[in-house]
Amino acid sequence: MKRASVFILAILACASGATGTEAPISSDTASCLECHNTLNPGIVADWKKSRMSKVTPRSAKDLPQIERRVSYDALPDSLAGVVVGCAECHTMNSQKHQDRFDHNGFQVHVVVTPENCAACHPLERTQYTRNLMSHAYGNLQNNALYRDLVKSVVGTQSFSGAKTTLNDPDPLSLADACLQCHGTVVRVKGTRTQKTDYGDMTFPLLSGWPNQGSGRVNPDGSKGSCSTCHARHQFAIETARKPHTCSQCHKGPDVPAFKVYEVSKHGNLYSSLGGSWAYDSVPWTIGKDITAPTCATCHISMMVSGEGEVLSQRTHQMSDRLPWRLFGLVYAHPHPKSPDTTIIRNKAGLQLPTELTGEPVPEYLIGVKEQKKRRKAMEKICLSCHSQGWVDGHFARLENTIKKTNEMTLTATQVLFSAWEKGVAKGPSEKDSIFNEGIEKKWVEGWLFFANSTRFSSAMMGADYGVFANGRWYMSKNIQEMIDWVETQSRKK
Amino acid sequence: MKRASVFILAILACASGATGTEAPISSDTASCLECHNTLNPGIVADWKKSRMSKVTPRSAKDLPQIERRVSYDALPDSLAGVVVGCAECHTMNSQKHQDRFDHNGFQVHVVVTPENCAACHPLERTQYTRNLMSHAYGNLQNNALYRDLVKSVVGTQSFSGAKTTLNDPDPLSLADACLQCHGTVVRVKGTRTQKTDYGDMTFPLLSGWPNQGSGRVNPDGSKGSCSTCHARHQFAIETARKPHTCSQCHKGPDVPAFKVYEVSKHGNLYSSLGGSWAYDSVPWTIGKDITAPTCATCHISMMVSGEGEVLSQRTHQMSDRLPWRLFGLVYAHPHPKSPDTTIIRNKAGLQLPTELTGEPVPEYLIGVKEQKKRRKAMEKICLSCHSQGWVDGHFARLENTIKKTNEMTLTATQVLFSAWEKGVAKGPSEKDSIFNEGIEKKWVEGWLFFANSTRFSSAMMGADYGVFANGRWYMSKNIQEMIDWVETQSRKK
Amino acid sequence: MKRASVFILAILACASGATGTEAPISSDTASCLECHNTLNPGIVADWKKSRMSKVTPRSAKDLPQIERRVSYDALPDSLAGVVVGCAECHTMNSQKHQDRFDHNGFQVHVVVTPENCAACHPLERTQYTRNLMSHAYGNLQNNALYRDLVKSVVGTQSFSGAKTTLNDPDPLSLADACLQCHGTVVRVKGTRTQKTDYGDMTFPLLSGWPNQGSGRVNPDGSKGSCSTCHARHQFAIETARKPHTCSQCHKGPDVPAFKVYEVSKHGNLYSSLGGSWAYDSVPWTIGKDITAPTCATCHISMMVSGEGEVLSQRTHQMSDRLPWRLFGLVYAHPHPKSPDTTIIRNKAGLQLPTELTGEPVPEYLIGVKEQKKRRKAMEKICLSCHSQGWVDGHFARLENTIKKTNEMTLTATQVLFSAWEKGVAKGPSEKDSIFNEGIEKKWVEGWLFFANSTRFSSAMMGADYGVFANGRWYMSKNIQEMIDWVETQSRKK
Repeated sequence: MKRASVFILAILACASGATGTEAPISSDTASCLECHNTLNPGIVADWKKSRMSKVTPRSAKDLPQIERRVSYDALPDSLAGVVVGCAECHTMNSQKHQDRFDHNGFQVHVVVTPENCAACHPLERTQYTRNLMSHAYGNLQNNALYRDLVKSVVGTQSFSGAKTTLNDPDPLSLADACLQCHGTVVRVKGTRTQKTDYGDMTFPLLSGWPNQGSGRVNPDGSKGSCSTCHARHQFAIETARKPHTCSQCHKGPDVPAFKVYEVSKHGNLYSSLGGSWAYDSVPWTIGKDITAPTCATCHISMMVSGEGEVLSQRTHQMSDRLPWRLFGLVYAHPHPKSPDTTIIRNKAGLQLPTELTGEPVPEYLIGVKEQKKRRKAMEKICLSCHSQGWVDGHFARLENTIKKTNEMTLTATQVLFSAWEKGVAKGPSEKDSIFNEGIEKKWVEGWLFFANSTRFSSAMMGADYGVFANGRWYMSKNIQEMIDWVETQSRKK
Repeated sequence: MKRASVFILAILACASGATGTEAPISSDTASCLECHNTLNPGIVADWKKSRMSKVTPRSAKDLPQIERRVSYDALPDSLAGVVVGCAECHTMNSQKHQDRFDHNGFQVHVVVTPENCAACHPLERTQYTRNLMSHAYGNLQNNALYRDLVKSVVGTQSFSGAKTTLNDPDPLSLADACLQCHGTVVRVKGTRTQKTDYGDMTFPLLSGWPNQGSGRVNPDGSKGSCSTCHARHQFAIETARKPHTCSQCHKGPDVPAFKVYEVSKHGNLYSSLGGSWAYDSVPWTIGKDITAPTCATCHISMMVSGEGEVLSQRTHQMSDRLPWRLFGLVYAHPHPKSPDTTIIRNKAGLQLPTELTGEPVPEYLIGVKEQKKRRKAMEKICLSCHSQGWVDGHFARLENTIKKTNEMTLTATQVLFSAWEKGVAKGPSEKDSIFNEGIEKKWVEGWLFFANSTRFSSAMMGADYGVFANGRWYMSKNIQEMIDWVETQSRKK
Repeated sequence: MKRASVFILAILACASGATGTEAPISSDTASCLECHNTLNPGIVADWKKSRMSKVTPRSAKDLPQIERRVSYDALPDSLAGVVVGCAECHTMNSQKHQDRFDHNGFQVHVVVTPENCAACHPLERTQYTRNLMSHAYGNLQNNALYRDLVKSVVGTQSFSGAKTTLNDPDPLSLADACLQCHGTVVRVKGTRTQKTDYGDMTFPLLSGWPNQGSGRVNPDGSKGSCSTCHARHQFAIETARKPHTCSQCHKGPDVPAFKVYEVSKHGNLYSSLGGSWAYDSVPWTIGKDITAPTCATCHISMMVSGEGEVLSQRTHQMSDRLPWRLFGLVYAHPHPKSPDTTIIRNKAGLQLPTELTGEPVPEYLIGVKEQKKRRKAMEKICLSCHSQGWVDGHFARLENTIKKTNEMTLTATQVLFSAWEKGVAKGPSEKDSIFNEGIEKKWVEGWLFFANSTRFSSAMMGADYGVFANGRWYMSKNIQEMIDWVETQSRKK
């Protein structure tokens, strides 16, 4: 079956008429399409709409630097003179892939990884390795404290004798829950044979699959998944630039960034006027292409002014415009230096960037100078549409809100300490989980939901998420409920 | 006033210029338009934008089978040679309608029913009668247990002597609450006379009106409302195919299908790229018209491949691609055989598809063979864009999540049983409602909100709805709060 | 630097090619653009897309009355013959602005206020002064009871000796929370000097800035901010007419108008078909421009029929189609007569439009006659697409729901009274806040979240917001939890 399919080539060349030139599809990809055009028509049609199917990596570099979407120095031979199709990604470097299998004479791998994409996009791959998101699996599962939190959420409970027992979470539930976003470990656990129109075929049987989590641990040893944001098989930059992509993992009560954006003035303008904006131009021009930012504008994209001035460089290390980690664990704090946060130890020996009483653990966190640099980088975007006075006022409020929400978290933590001291709940000194009892769950909501929501609201001006929509109202009420809980339990003893 | 209005005909013919031919409006409809064009300009303008106002049912059949939007064999005389306008629907079979009234010489009925639509769409009507949704009124109100749940929600409470009394819900509140989606019973309760520019006019006075619930009981005895999804008076297939229609009843914490979809990759692509998709082509082509599914794609629509292969048949019996009823009552279970679920009795005599301890009641539910058939039907859609290995992995997780959430519901139920046994809450053995006390309401939230959300999240890959957004976090916390409740109440005795 | 920039004028004239004529930009504005086109490219590009940058106020009046977007009688000299650019707004009446500063020879003010906009839009300004929203700052902060509620939400809590102390809220937190929507007081607190490419420059340092709250108290003494809804610097009427603008302040659990709209049939049609509607035509034609209403359609805009009949007059006094104030404080009630609600006193001396037991305080509220008039005004819009029978049925349900939710609030209030009487919580007779204890916070949620949500759901037919999505389910459960709270606390004494 490994032969050029002139017929399909012709069809595809017509399909790519938008470019006015024949799309030089490789003979390998043409072979794939011969069957998969029928087997998976949605994938193929989607890919045909992609820029990948129409532009060769070579011509993608024949552009002024500022207009390039590729960052390679040298191109692998396999990509010379052809567009990027099935075979280019799914057979590239297969020898490094545990998930490779022989398929009609090709060595195909199921899971396309950042290392594959790096053939054309090496800079983005490298930046992404420095991104917290690429370590999302390990940062959760290799941190004893967070693993205990995961267990308290995903583990089932059995009831017996007026008490519940918390069971260890099973792998399928983990993959279905936290690891959907954090990423699974994709491993080959065997093979499966499938009857097909072309006879019996054998494929690798994967555990942790499907998954497109941002910190997926891949069968070639790499971390992450470009398709988390650059959805297959159209890979439209428009998708990555629109906020709905981010909302997949950043909308829940623990990290309500998208919800806050939606009710901000920026989000309002995106929803109201965004239908007429341009999302696929490179470079992306403030005011011309868009008149209010999406998530990507402030956090990731290269932005230019109408006069062509570069206001911000494209980055896939997404915290480099962020001085603070608002998403508090347990308290908001300066961003960690290393994307691998499992190396952090506070004075109590916990893998936490702050003490339980809020003091940051400075040796693992960026300093004031780096914070200032990051804020300046962010302000450059703000100043496109706002004056310095406006921006100063905004950040003064955000920094105050970080301080105040940390104070409220400390108060909630002190109430929890009092519960442990009175013996109405069991804490670290009894070697008990700090996440399993009623009051401990309230405490978690205090910082994970309510303080976080209040800070996100402040950062992006989504008013009610700092008040009644999981904000200060709940932070305040939660402390009263914790007080009531301790009082009631103490009375019972 | 019953005469052809040549003037209006001429105007309307121009308005329908898109088709290039004169719209043959019936003289009856022209009579309606003569006044209602002024009285209700929004309705008329909306209808003018509809396909109904431009295409005759006859020409709608003059198409290849796969492109047809009508399913009739023979057409009533009243629809021969004209487009479908006011009179065609609102005077059709009026003799069967209790809500008919004499109106300028016409026998008009207010409520257009599936029986009226069946003149052109009989297959869809018949499929819909087999759909759980068409029985949504009776399945709620003629089930003693669910009626008691409804009372606990909609009935007001009075306070006296440190206790509350729960009052029966009043009809207007019922229509405003549960029955907005489930459907009201629309009855003629009298007549009302209205001063109009054309003199006094008399109209039927309806109870249960307005309503477009999916299980509405109509004045002609039929069940359901096509306008639930096919909104009047444009009846755009685009509306029915977009997920916002489904969201009207499937977004709340009890059935968060739309919310989960929104944060799934499918929903992200709909939100990001859907502005350029085609929603009104019949047949609907995967990859060409759309590059990710909406609700209709997977659950209702006829889908074809770019090569014209029919991947799924159109259905208005919407569970026939669904092996499981995720929406657990109290536990997730195989779909019921009959759309009338009031016939079900479990061993305890409750109208529930499972025991309170989770075992399904097999005689009323579909078997494994039918489940497999339904899953295969659904998989056919998945496989358009995903490999078999991907699909197998997905469904393995879903079935595991069904099992685990059912286990968590059993644990919560055992805690409730313990409360009843200890006498701190009153249950069935005291002939008390199982929905009225604090701990019982927590128990309801355990399955109705949290276990359901977790399952929907798993089914459609909307990650956080299985974790922190009403998912496993709350399922877990809820059980601890139930334990605390029982302990506190027991101590008091 | 105060000179005409012929070069920029030429560029801008080209940029506004859509109109086919040269945009007569004032020489003052041209001076601004000379630097700010580089300094704030986003603002300038946004403004260039605006109608303001293309149409002179004079030509805006040269239209039939019904098509006008301006309402002035006489135009200030500064606006004669030029479009509205930077200088026209930011230097107009600067002598009245405390926030004015000398800037390259201009007297510039930072904050553009309704008094500035009133040069062309005096009618809208005047209507807005009668709108509750323009008094949103004072109505919150100058009402002792509401100020106490604000403190209970925004004030931090300190923990000591098993008790918490509630601290006064700090100004930055207030501005970040309630006042984001209600509006801050913008005051000049000093000056700041900034290094710029043009040398050191001095600007006023403002407190309460940035802010676009609807009741902002401005440095010229006026109240409100037109940019709350008419977002700078494009000021697109499309933005104000789309519901996302309203959602910025009307989406949270306290006032879930947008959420209810989203799941209503109206909202469904907006989401499904609204991409093809016309949002910038004046007048706005029902059926032709839109086939379902947005927020503005029912509450603000001038609507006409296809035959040109004016169905509703444009209003910026947004309650004049509203007989009831659904947003209950503590109970739903007829709308207040005066937009300044701080003048209201109930029998207990509280600044509340009802007694704590629900009876309205009639002398401050509109009477039945005015309520009927307002309902008629609203019905005129409904009747464009619905029959009188439909409309009557709808409002009967809404009025019933107002009554029933008020009854449920009374029940919750009686439970709270019993807690105060038993001494398990401290109330007014102990001169204690009625918002600071656990049960009091539950009581607040009963009316502020659940009864409100139920009423909004009824008013706009967003079903589940009256049932499980913060509606009747929670209203009912909340009362049981209050009962349990009182019982538990009483037992402890």
